[in-house]
Amino acid sequence: MNKAAIYHRPKNNFAYAYDEETLHIIIQSGRDDLLSIDLIYGDPYQWENGSWLSNAVSMEKSGSTELHDYWFVAIKPEYRRMRYGFRCVSKTENWTYTERGFYKEPPNDSAPFFCFPYLHAQDVFQAPAWVKDTVWYQIFPERFGNGDSSNDPEGTLPWASTKPATDNFFGGDFQGVIDHLDHLVELGITGIYFTPIFKAYSNHKYDTIDYMEIDPQFGDKETFRNLIKACHNRGIRVMLDAVFNHSGYYFMPFQDVLEKQERSEYKDWFHLWEFPLETEDVPNYDTFGFVPSMPKLNTANVEVRNYLLEAARYWIEEFDIDGWRLDVANEVDHVFWRDFREVVKSAKPDAYILGEIWHDSMPWLQGDQFDAVMNYPFTNGAIEFFAKQAINANDFVNILTDVLHMYPANVNEVSFNLLDSHDTPRILTLANNNRQRVKLLYLFQLSFIGTPCIYYGDEVGMAGDEDPGCRACMVWEKDQQDRQLFDFVKHLIHLRRTVPAFGNKGSFRFLSADSLTNTIVYKKSTQDEQIIFVLNNSEKSSKVSVSELENKTTKELITNNRVTFEEDTVVNLEPYGYYCFRIL
Amino acid sequence: MNKAAIYHRPKNNFAYAYDEETLHIIIQSGRDDLLSIDLIYGDPYQWENGSWLSNAVSMEKSGSTELHDYWFVAIKPEYRRMRYGFRCVSKTENWTYTERGFYKEPPNDSAPFFCFPYLHAQDVFQAPAWVKDTVWYQIFPERFGNGDSSNDPEGTLPWASTKPATDNFFGGDFQGVIDHLDHLVELGITGIYFTPIFKAYSNHKYDTIDYMEIDPQFGDKETFRNLIKACHNRGIRVMLDAVFNHSGYYFMPFQDVLEKQERSEYKDWFHLWEFPLETEDVPNYDTFGFVPSMPKLNTANVEVRNYLLEAARYWIEEFDIDGWRLDVANEVDHVFWRDFREVVKSAKPDAYILGEIWHDSMPWLQGDQFDAVMNYPFTNGAIEFFAKQAINANDFVNILTDVLHMYPANVNEVSFNLLDSHDTPRILTLANNNRQRVKLLYLFQLSFIGTPCIYYGDEVGMAGDEDPGCRACMVWEKDQQDRQLFDFVKHLIHLRRTVPAFGNKGSFRFLSADSLTNTIVYKKSTQDEQIIFVLNNSEKSSKVSVSELENKTTKELITNNRVTFEEDTVVNLEPYGYYCFRIL
Repeated sequence: MNKAAIYHRPKNNFAYAYDEETLHIIIQSGRDDLLSIDLIYGDPYQWENGSWLSNAVSMEKSGSTELHDYWFVAIKPEYRRMRYGFRCVSKTENWTYTERGFYKEPPNDSAPFFCFPYLHAQDVFQAPAWVKDTVWYQIFPERFGNGDSSNDPEGTLPWASTKPATDNFFGGDFQGVIDHLDHLVELGITGIYFTPIFKAYSNHKYDTIDYMEIDPQFGDKETFRNLIKACHNRGIRVMLDAVFNHSGYYFMPFQDVLEKQERSEYKDWFHLWEFPLETEDVPNYDTFGFVPSMPKLNTANVEVRNYLLEAARYWIEEFDIDGWRLDVANEVDHVFWRDFREVVKSAKPDAYILGEIWHDSMPWLQGDQFDAVMNYPFTNGAIEFFAKQAINANDFVNILTDVLHMYPANVNEVSFNLLDSHDTPRILTLANNNRQRVKLLYLFQLSFIGTPCIYYGDEVGMAGDEDPGCRACMVWEKDQQDRQLFDFVKHLIHLRRTVPAFGNKGSFRFLSADSLTNTIVYKKSTQDEQIIFVLNNSEKSSKVSVSELENKTTKELITNNRVTFEEDTVVNLEPYGYYCFRIL
Repeated sequence: MNKAAIYHRPKNNFAYAYDEETLHIIIQSGRDDLLSIDLIYGDPYQWENGSWLSNAVSMEKSGSTELHDYWFVAIKPEYRRMRYGFRCVSKTENWTYTERGFYKEPPNDSAPFFCFPYLHAQDVFQAPAWVKDTVWYQIFPERFGNGDSSNDPEGTLPWASTKPATDNFFGGDFQGVIDHLDHLVELGITGIYFTPIFKAYSNHKYDTIDYMEIDPQFGDKETFRNLIKACHNRGIRVMLDAVFNHSGYYFMPFQDVLEKQERSEYKDWFHLWEFPLETEDVPNYDTFGFVPSMPKLNTANVEVRNYLLEAARYWIEEFDIDGWRLDVANEVDHVFWRDFREVVKSAKPDAYILGEIWHDSMPWLQGDQFDAVMNYPFTNGAIEFFAKQAINANDFVNILTDVLHMYPANVNEVSFNLLDSHDTPRILTLANNNRQRVKLLYLFQLSFIGTPCIYYGDEVGMAGDEDPGCRACMVWEKDQQDRQLFDFVKHLIHLRRTVPAFGNKGSFRFLSADSLTNTIVYKKSTQDEQIIFVLNNSEKSSKVSVSELENKTTKELITNNRVTFEEDTVVNLEPYGYYCFRIL
């Protein structure tokens, strides 16, 4: 037995409260090393005569990566307290794994066992309930729609008259969004994520000048209020972008520091190393990256903290926004984010807090800080496999299995699953303009665990490379839109909303993956329903045998066809073909 | 390479801020599997042309257990941001380990690397500075000294006139502690931990009646104030015991619930399942264990929360206590403990918060809750090896190496290292009355990383089995005290205080362990000083060769003898013998 590969540690993603009465226990072992794992458990105070009254339950293998198997079990401990260990069985060995290591026979006192001391409702990770059923749409406001030319900044170019550049403006605004909400309603969108809307210098507005003011090119506060109401009337929630890691160059406190240097009353608002400030070349103060015009805010300073928290509260209480997306969230301190959560949740208990973190984010997802992070590990796996065809089916399964085991299930359910954004090339471009690959991307994204986000324009086939290419003006002329793609995405969103197992209520398992043909098979299931997804991520046609379909009658959800399998369960797939068989 | 055994995950004990500018990075690999590990690292924003400007540094093997090696390196990243990976080298293989797994060649973009996004001073785990240099003494007040017979409860027995029982009283009180402070000063004690002193029913006082009142058998608030002042005048800090998980049966709110049942205004102060309450046999409400007279407090209730937090604040602000030890801390919710920390630290920024947790406590030690926990994993290893002789030298090294790698170094430095307590048999009894083993226990405890605690009376050779046996009256007659043991402990405490490497300033490494002879060799070192400890935990004499002593002149710290080694480094050890060679 590869005992050195076995890993478990209570709390985080290995042992957590899924809800007020259920614990999830997960353990890692070496790939294909163990035949079975049983969880031995009981109440910490019911240990008698060398064991517990309650006993053992077998764990289910919930997924495998290249190196590891993961095992899962859900338990409802009667008194919400639990001690436990793992009975690990290989072909030749049998060991009990506890906090104090491996025992040939289970220890005869309870002390060595792992402990989940008490399941408190207060400690359960709880994101807002509505998020699980939300399909997001990301809008870059300068480029979505120009509905009011009167607020166009000087030098605004005619809509889509030229390529997007880092410094040009096309006059997108709130009225433009209001005018086009029907497009979102038709698609089935239930949440909009706006990149920054506050007063700023650039077209992307990540260089905030004033966190309490709307950028005048987008409209005024009244128009913004109308936009929120128009969205809410259509069942669409609204999330704004909070750039709290750094300010813009023209943020008044930074300007004050530039002017007055060490005599500025704002000098502790930033992380300054020396005076005078050097804003050319390499800055002598902390910045976002090494960008002199984005000075890092000192969130440990109580004035900064109060100012930013007041902004967080203001836009919720005054305008009824539904969530905050936190830019560069990983570079701001945990103490600030804990305070931020308290302010946001007391202003609106079901507001959503989404952190921008590109890497493993467990430290921010323990219930005291964020509700979710932008799920870039998901993005990475999906793009490399479907769009770029850079990894094979088994690599893809390994990555996505990792993603699913990186966080608790209740975290995964509200994870923000994006495929691209204003920070990446668009999916069509990543897919080398292959629209079939884009369809597979959408099918996978919209049937996966989490809360999917569509980047404006992708749904009608817009292409675009890295910033600024990916920030082009939205295409509104229907004859220039890929309406077939639009209808496909709309249908998937409809399935997600109407077929429980298709959406977040279904649990996810990979059934098979073939790296020679790059076909994958996965299952989404609820207690009542099973859907088998068969995807061919290859330009060649393929055949896959799916034993779970044997003697099953199914409804194929894309075509709505009734498909019946007998002993022969071979599924024939066109190049880039796909099926979603709901078992009847 | 056993790649499946390699484990690292940022934050917690594998990657943390040791101070405001230093990151500690630790990685686990299979035992004896790798020849070396280099940390490849750089600023997240300085990645260019497929690599970083800064490069690789080799990691040191910081310890080994039965199954794993641990590797360590400390880094001061220039801009307090770091991405990093591990170059793992075995005899035959060479892999780069990142957040996305293993690469044959280091990835050519920075995204797959692990990330420590920003080292914020606010997020650094910071226990009070004084704790590192404190030697604690635990007092069970009913049994330490009866200094004032006027407050003796009815039925008080003459001091030490009979065995301690679960329900007898000997009249120990605050005046008794004040009267005997010289004993503590002589020993070198700098902190007292008192088990509960608040109004309660039992002799142990863990069944609180009123958290705002002193139990009258101990004296009044004035006497308590005098006690605190007397301690502070002698350089001794005082820590009280907060029993916030559950109240006692006679706690007014619980009595109110018993009387008025569902009509009680206090019914939400507890976790009640149904009415009427059943206080015989199996209770129908949450309790400590299954003890009906210890109803669990509902710390999610805002009134309970405010009441307990007010108590926490009151005893600090009004009486200037220096810390709180938290009873059954693991069964109270994290939300409450975060609030508790805020209240305590705003009342006294350098107050110490110590949780009673017997198992792995990482979730409470992330900087937002406790400063330390009672280090029972340490206790367990030390008792099993030195006292009970139940494990061999290699098992002991494995356990203690685990203990050291379970938490960040700044957590270990303030860990509360006890050998026994009112909850366990006394060490002399655990050691089968072998005083030589007790001396080894003290030598190890007092030279280890952390903050040691001596249970009252152990230092003069008191014996005693499980509660109530371990709670006997303190022996004050000098002819009945083991004064030799007292002098030994006093000398060790003196060394801890006066020889930097002996105490918490020294870093700890095991050098060797021999399970046949049960000898161990370890080193404590600072930049300027090295001490080699050689311990023979066996009733047979033994010889150990210690290559680190070759050609060294040393001062042996127990005997104060000068000992010189040439090529022959064999150390001859008496049964249970020991040496502490400070290299000159």
